Amino acid sequence: MLKKSKKSLGTANPTPVPVWVIATYDESNKPDAMTAAWAGIANSEPPTICVGLRPSRYTYENIKKKQCFSINIPSTALVNQTDYFGIESGRNVDKIKKAGLTANKCKNISAPYIEEFPMHIECKLVERVNLGSHFVVFGKIIETFVDEDKFDGDVPSIKKIDPIVYDTLTKTYIGCGSEVGKGFKSGVSVKKETEQK
Amino acid sequence: MLKKSKKSLGTANPTPVPVWVIATYDESNKPDAMTAAWAGIANSEPPTICVGLRPSRYTYENIKKKQCFSINIPSTALVNQTDYFGIESGRNVDKIKKAGLTANKCKNISAPYIEEFPMHIECKLVERVNLGSHFVVFGKIIETFVDEDKFDGDVPSIKKIDPIVYDTLTKTYIGCGSEVGKGFKSGVSVKKETEQK
Repeated sequence: MLKKSKKSLGTANPTPVPVWVIATYDESNKPDAMTAAWAGIANSEPPTICVGLRPSRYTYENIKKKQCFSINIPSTALVNQTDYFGIESGRNVDKIKKAGLTANKCKNISAPYIEEFPMHIECKLVERVNLGSHFVVFGKIIETFVDEDKFDGDVPSIKKIDPIVYDTLTKTYIGCGSEVGKGFKSGVSVKKETEQK
Repeated sequence: MLKKSKKSLGTANPTPVPVWVIATYDESNKPDAMTAAWAGIANSEPPTICVGLRPSRYTYENIKKKQCFSINIPSTALVNQTDYFGIESGRNVDKIKKAGLTANKCKNISAPYIEEFPMHIECKLVERVNLGSHFVVFGKIIETFVDEDKFDGDVPSIKKIDPIVYDTLTKTYIGCGSEVGKGFKSGVSVKKETEQK
């Protein structure tokens, strides 16, 4: 029974979700990029991420052929280019070049990364699962890079990386806000209180 | 070749990722809740989400037995309770009650949802994939609810829902910031420019 006034949204998606740009080479080694928000971390050992892709996508073809891809984390300053990578197909166009950005070759895999984005992750395809409209591709993380100028001392700064999340309910890109707590620490006070009960 | 100064972070995860609390009943219908950040949207038709879970988790046992679970989206005001759900096991304790929150029965499935969280999603298990340390469970979305007081008119407001994201690099919980663009709109200007080139 729904005690509080809860309104049904049908089968609406959870919100917010991350915004990643998946970069690949095609057969002729032309770089391509596609924006994905159906994506997340899947596994810890080995570190593995997942992305949902429609099989009609050029990116999906490229991943099947090359067995690898990079995840590029865009910053809010590049939100227009990021959205462009989601509305144009790379089948006939070099989207990265057209958007005024630079595709460099990854260090460990046969895929490009986008130079101007503050963070990228080089992945090898390990599994594909067909769920209906989309295939989920699982990528094992080979190596992760962050721009040197996005660090506070030795620690990468999410304020400086300035990534984008996506509100699925209003189809809106959103920046990140302030720190509200610490993982595996904020809950310790609650745990102590419960132990005294 | 990495042209810009990029620093390796080993196999660090992408950042940020969503923060969900997965709620289940155990065999005796005791409610349980567990915080997950290895999670995301996987598929559009049918709407399907995924969560990575260690098989040792009580939540994982419960999902296998009951074949369903709810995703609860916490707001920043409940960050301490949210983190607590990640550091305590529900095997011997009713964590939701201990944290001072309320477990109500979902409308469509045999799982609880957390009354005080602004949004929850009722899911049926459709698939499990073993990736090493974690199993990824895929849940088909049955129905999604948002508190009536979290709407602006007919539109649910992410400002009012006030969800949490997790910075994997510094293990920090973060609030959401301001709108920086519109999905399938912000990139139109870039597309037009490229067509003139």
